[in-house]
Amino acid sequence: MTSATRRRADAERNIEAILDAALTRLGRDPSASMTEIARAAGVGRVTLYGHFPSREALVDTLFDRSLADADAVLGAVDVDAGRADEALARLVRSSWRVLDRQRTVLTVALRVLGPERVRDRHAGVLARVERLLRRGRDEGVFTAAAPPGWQVTAVYTLMHAAALEVDEGRLDAADAAETLVSTILGALGGGPPGSGR
Amino acid sequence: MTSATRRRADAERNIEAILDAALTRLGRDPSASMTEIARAAGVGRVTLYGHFPSREALVDTLFDRSLADADAVLGAVDVDAGRADEALARLVRSSWRVLDRQRTVLTVALRVLGPERVRDRHAGVLARVERLLRRGRDEGVFTAAAPPGWQVTAVYTLMHAAALEVDEGRLDAADAAETLVSTILGALGGGPPGSGR
Repeated sequence: MTSATRRRADAERNIEAILDAALTRLGRDPSASMTEIARAAGVGRVTLYGHFPSREALVDTLFDRSLADADAVLGAVDVDAGRADEALARLVRSSWRVLDRQRTVLTVALRVLGPERVRDRHAGVLARVERLLRRGRDEGVFTAAAPPGWQVTAVYTLMHAAALEVDEGRLDAADAAETLVSTILGALGGGPPGSGR
Repeated sequence: MTSATRRRADAERNIEAILDAALTRLGRDPSASMTEIARAAGVGRVTLYGHFPSREALVDTLFDRSLADADAVLGAVDVDAGRADEALARLVRSSWRVLDRQRTVLTVALRVLGPERVRDRHAGVLARVERLLRRGRDEGVFTAAAPPGWQVTAVYTLMHAAALEVDEGRLDAADAAETLVSTILGALGGGPPGSGR
């Protein structure tokens, strides 16, 4: 191993340790300082600031990774096959799996980056939802009486509300996916798949 | 008029001017300072701090007033008459009227007080919703498959999401009430009143 390779491996290990520590510390206390994060990661402040100039930059990177996770999982869902409400149910179940494991990142991102930036960064994810909603509206599976932009917001809002409810112990994580599917399909004027409307 | 009466009248006028200025300034820029608010209200900093020790205290008072408005309006809705879904539609329409005129207060409160405190302060309003939801579940008008706490959250979340959508020009204020009624009744497993489920 050359010394350049070794330095790169060290840097990568430090970055992972910093991101792990940031998630744990900020998840417990959203106002945790960079000094506390450096200590928890077992690195010096100079190393920490060398990789991340601010708490925001740190949270940005954590959030980017969670969105990449979402993108990979949702990209594997076939949203063009079958009825639009059944496809949406699949998309909601897959989204929930990602959201559930990224709940702490979401909570931290909402606090540090703010709800507007969190929503803006979901544009790619929400474009998938909107495409499917439009198909469902065209097929008469979802109501066309409400604006499509509102329907996208309803899906986004209900999913994130469920994540916060689970976080605060008001909703059981095991039931959340099916509760979300039926709430969301109902909100879109759908109802459960196969209910023979 | 005695001088004590005059002083009280002056104080009340100042408080109203400060609250008006705070709402306007903070609505435009949530980081507006106490100095800017004093200037916009036409009062000195000493007078401002005499009435409100902090931006938070100011926003707290604005938010208290908007909740009192909500309480008065919602208290006048008869939630015990007729079918639960029709009663909920009335409650949503009345809530929306308050929410629409208190939109700026809500936006400012979310930013200055944070979403948890805003939600906690809605306990009184949400107790009305929950009582009605439980009646609807008992009557079989709303689904009993989802936890009642989640259904309360869905109603709260969708209403507040609609306020933000109107704020950002993504939803037409004139259509918002009926869009909300159908989205919320759908989410609860209802559907529009009289749809003959």
